[in-house]
Amino acid sequence: MKHYITAICLLAGSLLFTSCDKSSNGGKSDTSTPKFSIAIHGGAGALAKGSYTAEQEAAFKAKLEEATKLGYEMLSKGDSAADVVVAVIKILEDSPLFNAGKGSVITYNGKIKMDAAIMNGRTLDCGTVNNVQRIKNPITAARMVMDSSKYIMFSSAGAESFAAKNGIEMIDKSYFYTQHQIDRWRKTKDSTDASYIHYVDSMAALQSPIISALPEEGEFGTVGCVVMDKYGNLAAGTSTGGLINKKYNRVGDSPIIGAGTYANNKTCAISCTGTGEDFIKTVAAKTVSDLIEFKGMTLDAATYDMIHVRFKEITGDGGMIAVDKYGNISWQYNSDGMFRARTDQNGKIETYIYAE
Amino acid sequence: MKHYITAICLLAGSLLFTSCDKSSNGGKSDTSTPKFSIAIHGGAGALAKGSYTAEQEAAFKAKLEEATKLGYEMLSKGDSAADVVVAVIKILEDSPLFNAGKGSVITYNGKIKMDAAIMNGRTLDCGTVNNVQRIKNPITAARMVMDSSKYIMFSSAGAESFAAKNGIEMIDKSYFYTQHQIDRWRKTKDSTDASYIHYVDSMAALQSPIISALPEEGEFGTVGCVVMDKYGNLAAGTSTGGLINKKYNRVGDSPIIGAGTYANNKTCAISCTGTGEDFIKTVAAKTVSDLIEFKGMTLDAATYDMIHVRFKEITGDGGMIAVDKYGNISWQYNSDGMFRARTDQNGKIETYIYAE
Repeated sequence: MKHYITAICLLAGSLLFTSCDKSSNGGKSDTSTPKFSIAIHGGAGALAKGSYTAEQEAAFKAKLEEATKLGYEMLSKGDSAADVVVAVIKILEDSPLFNAGKGSVITYNGKIKMDAAIMNGRTLDCGTVNNVQRIKNPITAARMVMDSSKYIMFSSAGAESFAAKNGIEMIDKSYFYTQHQIDRWRKTKDSTDASYIHYVDSMAALQSPIISALPEEGEFGTVGCVVMDKYGNLAAGTSTGGLINKKYNRVGDSPIIGAGTYANNKTCAISCTGTGEDFIKTVAAKTVSDLIEFKGMTLDAATYDMIHVRFKEITGDGGMIAVDKYGNISWQYNSDGMFRARTDQNGKIETYIYAE
Repeated sequence: MKHYITAICLLAGSLLFTSCDKSSNGGKSDTSTPKFSIAIHGGAGALAKGSYTAEQEAAFKAKLEEATKLGYEMLSKGDSAADVVVAVIKILEDSPLFNAGKGSVITYNGKIKMDAAIMNGRTLDCGTVNNVQRIKNPITAARMVMDSSKYIMFSSAGAESFAAKNGIEMIDKSYFYTQHQIDRWRKTKDSTDASYIHYVDSMAALQSPIISALPEEGEFGTVGCVVMDKYGNLAAGTSTGGLINKKYNRVGDSPIIGAGTYANNKTCAISCTGTGEDFIKTVAAKTVSDLIEFKGMTLDAATYDMIHVRFKEITGDGGMIAVDKYGNISWQYNSDGMFRARTDQNGKIETYIYAE
């Protein structure tokens, strides 16, 4: 109900900063401060309530809060949506808690292969990389593709050559391995190939008591960020290690513009997490944008329609975060939980794992 | 105007096989024969009228006709949309006239790296491969991904491993090289790296008088096929060598579901050709589908809106072919020409390079 009221208010005069509340914070709008909003996710793979210890939940929330706080500070001082998306996702990539950058899942043959994408809603410019193994922060490479190439999507060794040539930080493959992901891989892998095991054993994996004690069943931990900056520009970014045990240089939805990542100042910015194939075949992010642009849906109605109606038809699995051109934030998931956080110009940071 | 009338007729009773004409053939519907439709393209890179000799134009048209005729015969005997898409695209991949399979353009470092995708509009299942170098018919590998994998998109050597393991025909890299593309590459390449030149020189390139005499400036030659079979199911497929001189394992729109390839029984099937990045950033194929589903546009209105209105906003470049769930065919391009052909259950094959 709330989003209908919000939509009416916004239609009536959001650009004049009326006294309507935004669904994203419930607080009153400040007519003197430009609005901005940010939402982030750390994957829709959270297990049923009670699966994590209090200490683990606190660790997830602290990291989500740290990333969101940085986003808030940057947005407050007028940084652009794309700059914020990159800086925030870097924090999540650097954390071994999530399946992106350090802490990524391990492929069938013992490698770590990461995908990332970013899109600028003002220009529709975008950049994506897939199957990269040596780029410390894949989101920075995606940004470099967007800014410094006439192309959009680079794959595997080619993406790494482009990144290295353009000054993106490269790092030894060992850096990405954590003992937790190695333990998961050993239990779930469907190959006994000794060379794969030997390869993984050769990695200097991170040992961390909190992370090693995480449940082994967690599925997704893709990270993403959507932003409306104080100039009203939108951007979205997503970064992931993909699916554990993936084969054949499988590419998921994260680096597919329109599937896992999309931004358009006309409508919204979106980042998805879940079974990537479900988001690819439904072109999920662009569907939400088109429901807003072509059907006049509110952001909440459009994300709900995608995750709770359209996903039912294909037994789709996952969630998404979104921000619209008015700064409204929406998130939906059909999993047990989704690691997520948000704030806006009022600075109150909310972090959640399960239902609010 | 014609498509509005068509749409009204179809709304009124297309499923009862009324006497309404279809815009795709102008002939009378046969109330006893199930309808089907097929359209193909060989790229929107045709140069200005007069650039090709009469002999070259005839060669293009003959190959388009051969492929369309096979599609007609298969559809007549009840083959499925996906089977037809694969068989038809194989013919175009095997022809050195087009930039897909044999005859593909050469990358910056002298390689040939191909992308392909297929999508089934009934199930939304899809399969794509990118940056493959040894698969004789990339469209067959995309089909195998769709049918025999839980994933959708495989890249480079991984895609080749999957294909080889599943019995897809592999071939020596030399097979794909034509003297015409080597000559083009030599003139346009922006590198003097001797190892690249040596690599290309080591290939046993096809010598063909007609093809070697083709103009060197032609840009795109991606191939695609869209089909509605006699059961009313849609499918789309696209195959390409990408852009000449491309670097860093660049992936274009062809293997991106929603960008260059999309099919959905609810709306339409689409295959695109042009500057891939323009189709990726606009998620062009899904946009057309959503204009139909969410805005109620006809197929012609939706493809026109995409190629002649939305593409103007981003200076987009290229064209598309589409078939909707009623069997109507539409094609649009903003280039000088687009190699294309179509037919339906009446069997009259039309082939075009320039305006009709």
